Amino acid sequence: MSPRPLAEGTKTVPQDELKRIAAYKAVEYVKSGMVLGLGTGSTANFAVARIGQLLKEGKLKDIIAVATSTRTAEQAVAAGIPLSGLDDHPLIDLSIDGADEVDPDLNLVKGRGGALLREKMVETASATFVVVVDETKLVDALGGSGLAMPVEVVQFCWKYNAERLKKLPELAGCEVKLRMEGDNPFVTDNSNYIIELYFKDPIKDAKAAANAISSIPGVVGHGLFLDMATHVIIASVDGVTVRSKHS
Amino acid sequence: MSPRPLAEGTKTVPQDELKRIAAYKAVEYVKSGMVLGLGTGSTANFAVARIGQLLKEGKLKDIIAVATSTRTAEQAVAAGIPLSGLDDHPLIDLSIDGADEVDPDLNLVKGRGGALLREKMVETASATFVVVVDETKLVDALGGSGLAMPVEVVQFCWKYNAERLKKLPELAGCEVKLRMEGDNPFVTDNSNYIIELYFKDPIKDAKAAANAISSIPGVVGHGLFLDMATHVIIASVDGVTVRSKHS
Repeated sequence: MSPRPLAEGTKTVPQDELKRIAAYKAVEYVKSGMVLGLGTGSTANFAVARIGQLLKEGKLKDIIAVATSTRTAEQAVAAGIPLSGLDDHPLIDLSIDGADEVDPDLNLVKGRGGALLREKMVETASATFVVVVDETKLVDALGGSGLAMPVEVVQFCWKYNAERLKKLPELAGCEVKLRMEGDNPFVTDNSNYIIELYFKDPIKDAKAAANAISSIPGVVGHGLFLDMATHVIIASVDGVTVRSKHS
Repeated sequence: MSPRPLAEGTKTVPQDELKRIAAYKAVEYVKSGMVLGLGTGSTANFAVARIGQLLKEGKLKDIIAVATSTRTAEQAVAAGIPLSGLDDHPLIDLSIDGADEVDPDLNLVKGRGGALLREKMVETASATFVVVVDETKLVDALGGSGLAMPVEVVQFCWKYNAERLKKLPELAGCEVKLRMEGDNPFVTDNSNYIIELYFKDPIKDAKAAANAISSIPGVVGHGLFLDMATHVIIASVDGVTVRSKHS
């Protein structure tokens, strides 16, 4: 399915309201007693706030959560959600997070927010992974949005690794750029750099691309989240739809 | 070929002298005008010293080298070898380094010295990669020495990743241990930790093991150096032998 622009002059629902509606839908999957993974970003924020609210109202109990970023951890603490880590809770029942792109097989591009590695660690450990997006995030094939796909690399010889990424046949035709923060390179929570890939054409074989990227020495992680999402909740002006793996 | 203990009471050549002889043999591959990769460790030290000597004697000229560690860089500078980096010299003509294990197909385990990621980046970029070992490093299959195989991981949730490594079917039966330096975890040049794998039985399929390890989010690198060595120089009390890929 191609991204469909919101029809002008018909219904006007602010994008933030769409995100909130979809995030609330995702929180319906949360049950008392669960270990939760909390994503990072504007959509995940709505989910965290909603979980905090349900805990306060007593509609949810015995929740423990693992946050995918410092930012989310702070929000969770403020919302009264007890936190733990993967070391103590290596099995997550349910994670909720946003995504930058979603393909028809529920494969994702994530991490434009810069928390990709921790998100991937937590969400790989999750039995159920509910992704929340608005319909503009749907693509026919990953890389199709023309926006950046992040690759986290060690700082040592990052230019060399940027060139290696650019030359991978599996990423044919991509442009590479170091992510900046003002005048300096952006540094991740793990003290690494982010190389952003820009695709002229969508990626033909995402699994082959992921393997090729991972096999470069010095690559720490990348934004292709394949075979991980179990449910994708899509908000549009026409309402909320849910797609599930194997259904 | 199994590791063969030095025969007692016959010839007695100190291990350091074996390393020196083999390292000098490796330096015979160096030609004037080459870009060199300089390994890390006691064997590589002998090669660096020898290259410096030949430069001083005028028997080698126009050498530029990329060092795989701060330690080696310091030694190279002291020996009068001009240094550069992969960013400026992304194509290395020849690298020389030691190894911890060598299998019959010239696949290696490396990195017990802690410089595995930089070594792998430099040696992957090398047209010719000459490995120098004494015969005690030869194994029938990687992991067969019973010594540590290093995996570099981000510090975040390292315990969780240690458990994931331990449970990989491709590494069946391995024990995991965080590398320490005194009372604190050892920290690599890239601010990461090292998880050491100890195998009861050798690795059955090294390529499958390497892919499985690399695909864990948070793994930055590992000590399996597959399909990289082009020549292995083996020193024994009986002399020096050379094995080459495809010969």
